[in-house]
Amino acid sequence: MNGARALIQTLVDAGVEVCFTNPGTSEMHFVAALDEVEGMTAMLCLFEGGATGAADGYARMADKPAATLLHLGPGLGNGFANLHNARRAGVPMVNIVGDHATYHKQYDAPLESDMDAVAGACSGAVIRSTTPDQVAGDAADAVAQSLASPNQVVTLALPADVCWLPAPGPVAPVVPAAPKPVDEALLAELAAALSEPGAVLLLGGRALRAAPRVAGARVAAATGARVFAETFPAREERGAGLPPLDRIAYLAEFAQMQLAGATRLVAIDAAAPVSFFAYPDKASVLTPDDCVVTVVSREHDPAELLEALAAHLDAPVEVEVAEPSRPDLPTGELTSESVAAAIGALLPEGAIVVDEANTSGLFIPGATAGAPRHDWLCLPGGAIGFGIPTATGAAVACPDRPVLSLEADGSAMYTLQALWTQARENLNVTTVILKNSSYAVLNMELSRVGAEAGGEQAKRMLDLTGPELDFVALARGLGVDASRATTAEEFVTALRSGLATDGPTLIEAVVPALGL
Amino acid sequence: MNGARALIQTLVDAGVEVCFTNPGTSEMHFVAALDEVEGMTAMLCLFEGGATGAADGYARMADKPAATLLHLGPGLGNGFANLHNARRAGVPMVNIVGDHATYHKQYDAPLESDMDAVAGACSGAVIRSTTPDQVAGDAADAVAQSLASPNQVVTLALPADVCWLPAPGPVAPVVPAAPKPVDEALLAELAAALSEPGAVLLLGGRALRAAPRVAGARVAAATGARVFAETFPAREERGAGLPPLDRIAYLAEFAQMQLAGATRLVAIDAAAPVSFFAYPDKASVLTPDDCVVTVVSREHDPAELLEALAAHLDAPVEVEVAEPSRPDLPTGELTSESVAAAIGALLPEGAIVVDEANTSGLFIPGATAGAPRHDWLCLPGGAIGFGIPTATGAAVACPDRPVLSLEADGSAMYTLQALWTQARENLNVTTVILKNSSYAVLNMELSRVGAEAGGEQAKRMLDLTGPELDFVALARGLGVDASRATTAEEFVTALRSGLATDGPTLIEAVVPALGL
Repeated sequence: MNGARALIQTLVDAGVEVCFTNPGTSEMHFVAALDEVEGMTAMLCLFEGGATGAADGYARMADKPAATLLHLGPGLGNGFANLHNARRAGVPMVNIVGDHATYHKQYDAPLESDMDAVAGACSGAVIRSTTPDQVAGDAADAVAQSLASPNQVVTLALPADVCWLPAPGPVAPVVPAAPKPVDEALLAELAAALSEPGAVLLLGGRALRAAPRVAGARVAAATGARVFAETFPAREERGAGLPPLDRIAYLAEFAQMQLAGATRLVAIDAAAPVSFFAYPDKASVLTPDDCVVTVVSREHDPAELLEALAAHLDAPVEVEVAEPSRPDLPTGELTSESVAAAIGALLPEGAIVVDEANTSGLFIPGATAGAPRHDWLCLPGGAIGFGIPTATGAAVACPDRPVLSLEADGSAMYTLQALWTQARENLNVTTVILKNSSYAVLNMELSRVGAEAGGEQAKRMLDLTGPELDFVALARGLGVDASRATTAEEFVTALRSGLATDGPTLIEAVVPALGL
Repeated sequence: MNGARALIQTLVDAGVEVCFTNPGTSEMHFVAALDEVEGMTAMLCLFEGGATGAADGYARMADKPAATLLHLGPGLGNGFANLHNARRAGVPMVNIVGDHATYHKQYDAPLESDMDAVAGACSGAVIRSTTPDQVAGDAADAVAQSLASPNQVVTLALPADVCWLPAPGPVAPVVPAAPKPVDEALLAELAAALSEPGAVLLLGGRALRAAPRVAGARVAAATGARVFAETFPAREERGAGLPPLDRIAYLAEFAQMQLAGATRLVAIDAAAPVSFFAYPDKASVLTPDDCVVTVVSREHDPAELLEALAAHLDAPVEVEVAEPSRPDLPTGELTSESVAAAIGALLPEGAIVVDEANTSGLFIPGATAGAPRHDWLCLPGGAIGFGIPTATGAAVACPDRPVLSLEADGSAMYTLQALWTQARENLNVTTVILKNSSYAVLNMELSRVGAEAGGEQAKRMLDLTGPELDFVALARGLGVDASRATTAEEFVTALRSGLATDGPTLIEAVVPALGL
């Protein structure tokens, strides 16, 4: 048995079932070994950002790591943005990056670069295997570290000779470190904080699953604290039957209005609220100056913590929940509003919504708040190009659930290649491209940063016409059936058809840009 | 005047005329300032790898830097692979990466990452501007450092507030450090080395322009040394009227045959020959064990050095040159060979050929060796996905010259978005996609690394069918006219038409994979 086989067998034994790949020469022994091990499914991506984004989406839904397989520093670079997003999403991932053979690195061959430096910037931990004796143990450690509290991206640097040389064999799984226990002192501190007048409970990460959301609402009922979700959660379970929950707004001014009057804020599996970007004469910190912020250690399990806190407070069991409600099916003009209404009217129970719709998607969360229970996946890391890959991985994790991938036209162009993987694996993803033919968010940001924007060159940098992008052609070029909708009726028909189709489909929804 | 305007004016004054952009919020002041300065043309790319690859292609042809404009660490990550390629190509570039405002970084906002670590792995130098007083001087330094000997990628980290705050104004250009002088001792050493029996002169980088190539041939004639070019030059001037010159082969076994008997090797603007990858039981170093290798410092100007060396040797002025010759126009089956013949028959004088055709392009250099003078741009860094962006930048640098972009289907899928920029800027690029529907080079490498490749999963990782990629649809989706050729006659017609068209066109040339 060579190192590659020992590595893959160890991953399988530790529960890793899927590997999203974009391999090169230095990964060929890994590729060859895929067929020697039962239980590892490899899925080819045509670009590394597709692989890392798919592993992110898989982990968000499966709560366990997928592996990736990338090719040296440049392949890691291509996967960097979605690794950054996965790091911010706090998901488990075993990001395997092939490297030159240990003895070959000294020659500075063309593909050599300081890949460990790049890995360090997008990973919670970096492990470099240096001998075939060590590789299986490193793989077991990588899985365990990825499943630590909080979960994290672990990059495993894998020299080619470590794969091809004989290895002693797989090793047994390593048990991940348990979450930090919740003690009475912490519960008493948080209960006291949240009982103060003007208290706010901010939930993020894994605190936005159904059970901790209910526990959070119970805590709020017991203490009088207001509850918010972080701005762009990795995964929020939501819909009818769960407590209503507003997210902190993306725009700093609105977020400050939401948080006005807050004197005490407790963040659970979330960071202290800060502005996405700095703007001249606008605040970076979104809580009022006199607000005391407690960020609870992410080493705790947020569900366990919130349940314990509710019990500590003897909180009421029954809480207010969202009633089932759906908008009417829209007719007439296709706009951001009518797209939202159509999605609200038709979203199937158990859907997984991946939301990279940006400005054009502004109304969709509201239109689906009373829809049947579903999961909503946002972009905690802010690096656009996560949506299509993440939808791909979510569909792999949950083959029996429909995935609705909401994409802005600008964002879609970063990692469009992932559509091909959806077609190859016949994944149940309906992609909606909200095409407003501009980087509309930047049009808004240009004025928000106080920049003068009258010039022709500046306008050209934010404009996606000349030439027009044709997403129907692009999707078909990647093997995905596609159609275009220019009226609400056409969109409703296309969305119904897409959601009823077993494999991937794409709808180009032509909408005017919002005047933000 | 704010920092952004001072920065851009300084760049323009230092000769930087073009900026390839993919901006975000933190770059909005830079974008707004584009219209306040005369002489800077911004070109939008839909993906950062398009921007960095375009700046590479521009620099190869213009011999001066373009700027890029990227968005924080993840944008830099998306541009990393083509920055790696530009670093290996030894081109000048001012890679501008916007960052959070200086006072905002402490808050670890969603897009924060260790971007300086990433920049260090793909740049010759990294400069971080920290005040608006400093930014113009930093820009002048960045241009000068990019034009040092050897040329290099300089990354300028640009916090948002450094752009938006008032700045004192532009600064005058800084004169780049002069190349290291060529002295008599060096010339005597190299002349003696190359006069040894079994001597080899290896030319790379800027030593492959017309004048140093002729000087190299003169040196060879005077000393009896054999001359080779590096495997994948950044830019080789070639064709009828220039001395014939073989490149060191990509495959280590062939390279070793070429270098058999070499006892002394002098590399000018080139690295010592090493294998691209390590393989079990194959050599990493390609020169014979007893060969003494001298790598001449890249701080010298290679053209000046070779001219001086020829003069030192009193070398003959007349050298053997390639005679004009073209293959006959092919008919019948469309294959790698008939594609090569058609290109050899039709390549226009002054063409710029960007070669990312990989295995399917094996015969094209031979078929064009006697074509009218042209430039040939390869991939020194080995990170695929350089071709379409590099062709884009080359066309911007040389608007009066036809660009022929030769692409493999696998490689094309990394940075296909650059076609849109070709359409927007109406660039004179004819793209040929050599579609063999596989990662054919990996099929070859799989057996070369000694891996057993019988399994279904391994085959699936190297196969680009299921679904078939449709490059005609993809190109049209990006606004580029396209056609498909399945016979030699169809390809000849399409290539003639593409070369005669002023704007971009694409030909999907369906060819069988070579049995390598």
